[in-house]
Amino acid sequence: MPPAIVLVAPQLGENIGTAARAMANFGVTDLRLVAPRDGWPNEKARSASSGAIHVIENARVFGTLDEAIADLSFVIATTRRPRDMTKRVEGPAEGLAELAATARTGAGTGILFGRERWGLENDEIARANIIVSFPVDPTFASLNIAQSVLLMSYEWRRVAHAAPTMPEPKNPPATREDVTALWEHLNRVLTPAGYFRPPDMAEKMARNLLLILSDAGWDRQQVRTLRGVLGHLERPRGEGDDREG
Amino acid sequence: MPPAIVLVAPQLGENIGTAARAMANFGVTDLRLVAPRDGWPNEKARSASSGAIHVIENARVFGTLDEAIADLSFVIATTRRPRDMTKRVEGPAEGLAELAATARTGAGTGILFGRERWGLENDEIARANIIVSFPVDPTFASLNIAQSVLLMSYEWRRVAHAAPTMPEPKNPPATREDVTALWEHLNRVLTPAGYFRPPDMAEKMARNLLLILSDAGWDRQQVRTLRGVLGHLERPRGEGDDREG
Repeated sequence: MPPAIVLVAPQLGENIGTAARAMANFGVTDLRLVAPRDGWPNEKARSASSGAIHVIENARVFGTLDEAIADLSFVIATTRRPRDMTKRVEGPAEGLAELAATARTGAGTGILFGRERWGLENDEIARANIIVSFPVDPTFASLNIAQSVLLMSYEWRRVAHAAPTMPEPKNPPATREDVTALWEHLNRVLTPAGYFRPPDMAEKMARNLLLILSDAGWDRQQVRTLRGVLGHLERPRGEGDDREG
Repeated sequence: MPPAIVLVAPQLGENIGTAARAMANFGVTDLRLVAPRDGWPNEKARSASSGAIHVIENARVFGTLDEAIADLSFVIATTRRPRDMTKRVEGPAEGLAELAATARTGAGTGILFGRERWGLENDEIARANIIVSFPVDPTFASLNIAQSVLLMSYEWRRVAHAAPTMPEPKNPPATREDVTALWEHLNRVLTPAGYFRPPDMAEKMARNLLLILSDAGWDRQQVRTLRGVLGHLERPRGEGDDREG
């Protein structure tokens, strides 16, 4: 199945419409909007879609990015190479080949695009499995949302049509909801343990953990196992001792 | 060197400008305009280029397609798969890999984009070495000029950066001017020989010859040799006999 196109906090309805048109050109139809500034539905989006009405009408709106990607197992963040983050960066073709491999298992996939002015926040990028960066001329690097969506939709179709059928993995890959829940669980375990110190470093430390968990590429069973591990870790010490006896 | 972007009879200055911007994003700068409807320079093109002024200011205008591509050795026509023509059709990645192989010899290359309403004419397509067709969803296939230029410029940069250095061929490839001259020479030889009959088929027959010559991928020396062959064929019979004696 083609990836979901997730526009994070888009500002102009016209950009949503031109993105929808670019999706439709290459058979990509699952449009998800996170907190669009001007609400939804949006008449400007509809008219700018140049007839890609099926994409506009089936678009879904979410309050948060976590909700928008909860059912997805592999997520790409499109952005320039960030300075302050150790996440893996790929070109569009390589990134979409990876995404397509997950999609072939039947799992949901998605691609994140940032707001017009400043793209994706680091907290948003942290939720992705990998970063895809376009090989633009560094002296003239600006791509608008519709152009970025067009390039990724094109590469999706190219890669998906070219790719051979691969054997399915034994277990379905973890969804983003699985990974987020695991991360939140880990934070709940670590906070009382005094991990997040000093306090002004806590946010960065937590984000780094999310990066590590997102990069892992676990399947659902593996995440369930880890949740079990955390469940044990968060019990008061005494209970753990009881099991030993 | 990046390919020349050749816009054939573009109508709206705005489309020239957004195409120039798409070129600049991926480091492609040689813009050639064949008979732009509203003349040149064009203020709308400049403002729509969003700062890609270096592309706009260096753009060159030509009266005919033949003049615009005279110095090029490998030319791609971007179009939907034509019904009435036997020219080879490739995807963007494969087509640009071929183009890049020629560009690495130092020879000029180019990509043709058609007018807004109906694209390239068959006579124009016939001048290309190959056709590139985008893998669009057939139920929603329309791409505008800037989108097509963006996709081809992106693929150029991707392919050119990824490609290994290849050994140079012994002879430089023929330019379009070489091939056109060869074709015209052939027509001059064939017309008095009564080849182009019946008359209502003549145009189609000539175009088909141009296709065949364009597909061949000869080098300049080979074309020179063929011109010599034609030179002999067009002499009155008697002269040829003299040489034997």
